[in-house]
This record gives sequence, structure tokens and C-alpha cells, in this order.
Amino acid sequence: MNLKSQVEWALHCCALLAGLPAGRYLSTKTLAEFHGLPKEYLSKALQGLSQAGIVESTLGPSGGYRLAKAAADVSFLDIVEAVEGKSRTFICNEIRRNNPCLSADYCETKPCPIARVMWEADAAWRETLRRVSLSDLAASLGEDVPAELLDKSFTWLLARS
Amino acid sequence: MNLKSQVEWALHCCALLAGLPAGRYLSTKTLAEFHGLPKEYLSKALQGLSQAGIVESTLGPSGGYRLAKAAADVSFLDIVEAVEGKSRTFICNEIRRNNPCLSADYCETKPCPIARVMWEADAAWRETLRRVSLSDLAASLGEDVPAELLDKSFTWLLARS
Repeated sequence: MNLKSQVEWALHCCALLAGLPAGRYLSTKTLAEFHGLPKEYLSKALQGLSQAGIVESTLGPSGGYRLAKAAADVSFLDIVEAVEGKSRTFICNEIRRNNPCLSADYCETKPCPIARVMWEADAAWRETLRRVSLSDLAASLGEDVPAELLDKSFTWLLARS
Repeated sequence: MNLKSQVEWALHCCALLAGLPAGRYLSTKTLAEFHGLPKEYLSKALQGLSQAGIVESTLGPSGGYRLAKAAADVSFLDIVEAVEGKSRTFICNEIRRNNPCLSADYCETKPCPIARVMWEADAAWRETLRRVSLSDLAASLGEDVPAELLDKSFTWLLARS
């Protein structure tokens, strides 16, 4: 079970958008070039972010994307779900109902105990992603990435915004 | 991102095997019939459990599968990983290395902060699955499934074991 590569791309793009000054946008072309990604496929991930209300776009020569909310209000979960959808990773097909010993009128009152455990694990995964926002990520990047490289990167990006 | 249906099948089969008396085996045919599953596909899931050392098989007319360990020593995670593999759900492709502002001699010292969060969530998912064993599941089933249905089911299964 693997997440799509677009999850990684969307998270990296949002990390950059979180660092943009007000009123500036980054185009799909610039985001693709900065990350070395195919523009057409990245475009689909960005549309997913837009449909989820995480980014907003503008047209025109300096058009592109910017965050639609404060970085503190966008979680990893928001971004992951914008690309992968919100449905649980475990689908219960209720195979317990195929038990040949079940009487015709037997009715389950609770979800299957196996599904309950699998859904609890899914909830733990989502909860971890919900707790980390784009501002938390910006703080980690500020610690990890040398200031000089951050400066150079945003100078490069802003020249194209 | 969805888990394979075989994860559900493997968990249900292990739940039954955990209730078998010592020295008894259930065949792929019986397990498939009880759960209303296609025998050929179920067979692959059972082979995965066998390769992971969770079940062991015997040949012959009353052959089939039984647990290779005590039910308390088999976790949901063991079973999920036997079917899905152990690799993390988020693969970091290190797209940060494509940054056009990086100097040729720049060397990352830590994993990407984005991957760290995604891996933390993966670990939370696995930890939840690691904490629940087949004996815990048997206890839940004992609470949920009426005693009469459990008896009838095991009578049906033991007649075919």
C-alpha cells in the first residue's frame, strides 16, 4: 500500500507557498521546475489542492497559486486527503455475512471487530497528520535548511512569481 | 490509498485458525467456502501468511493450515505486513535535491522534514496494529458474536478440519 507520488509533490509545493509574501503567486511551471517534476502531472495535484480549498489560483502573466488560508490552518492531513481522498484505507466487505451457519434473519448490530481495529489504526494515522500544520513544517525547514540556501531559493522563486 | 482485500481475508482466516483445537487444520477450500471467497486468490494470501511464519501447513486429506504461534503472539500488524509487505506507505523521492539553487557539493544531513512527518504517521498506524493480537480479537468476537452462532460455526468448521 503506497501513497501516490503526488502527495509528496503537493506537500513540497504547499511548503513553498507557505513562505510566499502576500499577493504573490507561483505558477505550475515554476513549481515544477523548482522540484524537477513533470508539469502536467503536478498540475493535477495542484488542482486537487485547489478543489479542497487549500490553494487559490489567479490567471494572467504573474498568475499561479497561493495558499487560500493561513499556514497554521493547513494540516498535513488536509493536503494528503486533497490528493488521496478521505476514504479509509481499509474497506470492510462484510465477509462475515457469508458464514454458511448464519440464519436468514440474523442481523449484525455492530461493525466487524476486525474492521474496528483497522479503522482505529487509520484514525491514528490521520490524527498524526492532523496535528502537523504548514507552519510547523516551516519551522522544521528553518532549522534544517541553511539560511543561505533558503534565501537563494526564495530569491529564485520570487523572481518568477 | 487502499489496502488489498486479501488483508481482510487473511485477518478473518487467522481469527478462525486461532479458535481451532490443537492438531486440527483448515483447508483453503473450507476457509474459502466459509467466507464466500475465491479459493485461488485466498490461496495466495494464505501462502503469504505461511511465508511470514504466522501459519503452518500440512498436506494430506485432512491437511490445511493452522497457526504457527500462540494467538497472543500474532498481532494485526504481523498479518497486515504478511500481505502488504513492510515498506512504508510514504516513499520519499528526495525531490528537494532538484532545487536549482543547490550547490553541487551540498549534502543533506537529515531526512526531509516532510518525510519525517509522513513516517511518524505510518509508525502510529503500525503501532495501533501491533498492539492488538489474535487473542484480543477472539475476546471481541466472543462479546459480539452470539454463543450459539460461534458454536454452530466451529461445529461446521471442525467437521471439515
